[in-house]
Amino acid sequence: MLELFLVGIGTGNPDHLTREAENAIRNADLVLLPHKEANKAELAQVRLTMLQQLGVGDERIAHFEMPQRRQQGDDYGQQVDEWHDAIARRWQASLSAHLPAGTGRVALLVWGDPALYDSTLRIAARLGLAAAQVRVVPGISSMQVLCSAHGIALNEIGAPFLVTTGRQLRDQGWPECIGTLVVMLDGQCSYEQVHLPDVEIYWGAYLGMPQQILLHGRLPQAAAEISARRAQARQEHGWIMDIYLLRRPGTGC
Amino acid sequence: MLELFLVGIGTGNPDHLTREAENAIRNADLVLLPHKEANKAELAQVRLTMLQQLGVGDERIAHFEMPQRRQQGDDYGQQVDEWHDAIARRWQASLSAHLPAGTGRVALLVWGDPALYDSTLRIAARLGLAAAQVRVVPGISSMQVLCSAHGIALNEIGAPFLVTTGRQLRDQGWPECIGTLVVMLDGQCSYEQVHLPDVEIYWGAYLGMPQQILLHGRLPQAAAEISARRAQARQEHGWIMDIYLLRRPGTGC
Repeated sequence: MLELFLVGIGTGNPDHLTREAENAIRNADLVLLPHKEANKAELAQVRLTMLQQLGVGDERIAHFEMPQRRQQGDDYGQQVDEWHDAIARRWQASLSAHLPAGTGRVALLVWGDPALYDSTLRIAARLGLAAAQVRVVPGISSMQVLCSAHGIALNEIGAPFLVTTGRQLRDQGWPECIGTLVVMLDGQCSYEQVHLPDVEIYWGAYLGMPQQILLHGRLPQAAAEISARRAQARQEHGWIMDIYLLRRPGTGC
Repeated sequence: MLELFLVGIGTGNPDHLTREAENAIRNADLVLLPHKEANKAELAQVRLTMLQQLGVGDERIAHFEMPQRRQQGDDYGQQVDEWHDAIARRWQASLSAHLPAGTGRVALLVWGDPALYDSTLRIAARLGLAAAQVRVVPGISSMQVLCSAHGIALNEIGAPFLVTTGRQLRDQGWPECIGTLVVMLDGQCSYEQVHLPDVEIYWGAYLGMPQQILLHGRLPQAAAEISARRAQARQEHGWIMDIYLLRRPGTGC
């Protein structure tokens, strides 16, 4: 039987690995390792180092190039569907090449947690495996590392918080009755468009990695500093992964 | 210098511990171990076993009784404040008794993640320590284990999700424009009060522990089964910790 482990590895700090994740990786017969844009070589290296430290040699690693998502057109849902199909075909090709008998334990390393803004579960669903063949290993997510690094809680006492994306924040604004937003997948500094009074922002980039940057302050002053620092760091490293939490006093309810 | 480590330990499965959490516990000069109601002895035992496995002997453990929160009156915020003050005094008393020189590494074991519906950070803030003396170690939270156990993602593609409480769900209803709710701290089966069409519920109790229970289905049919199973399990074990995710088609926007 083929078993597929979707392993959350946290945000790049090997100390964030759980024992369950370590075991899933150590015991894998094959690790599928996607490669994205060349300027993310630094990220690929973090995963390779992690694999080496866990004793996974190159003979157990199947490298593959990630297909590109079609970016033209406003059919975003369809683009994502096609892209996931294409990735599933790459996985399938790697599995056929490396595990021709169709049996073995396969691990996929997922940044953060596979449950959080990640496509791996949806791609795995395309392989036609039974539910029991797909095992999800939770990992420390960037929103947790953001909070631990700033020494803050996600929620105020007994209050809700919304986890959302930069696009949603731009399109929908700040929803009523919610005091805290955690914003992920924001390549466009959407916090700059928040004009409510007394909003605090807690921002972090490269969380858990040696190059981690943390900034915190009140909008809009902090926004300018964050956007400048973000642009500078992105140019310096060739890539950036960041996340932020916005909090306003009260909830408007 | 006194250093306080607030260590997320996940939901009771020792394999959910991160290396960072293991190290913080192993290297602690003192572990503060609160004891709650007698019927949660099973939970206290999980932590004690975890400490033993990490080589922390009883000479490094400071047990203390958790004070009770005053339950009368409708001044909930004030009740919580007083309660946190009282807990902070117990911590302080334990620290003075066990580390009279005021130096050393102290660990507090927190279920799940210290950033998520947990008071530990707010209690720590009452000790008058500098920010650098308080270190938060993120842990796998119950909402992550819920999703991994059910093999589902927290969010739909590019969509937000709200993390909230049973009380909020009862008082505020289901907010507009949000397709997914994660409900924590719900002792009152508040999902029974959701009457929107086609809502699916993914429920889990004792997540990550040997007695884990998972149920999934469409409201209201699933609600009846979950409530019955919940009452039965709670009676059997003397305690229950559970969480659920509700998802409706579309977002109503």
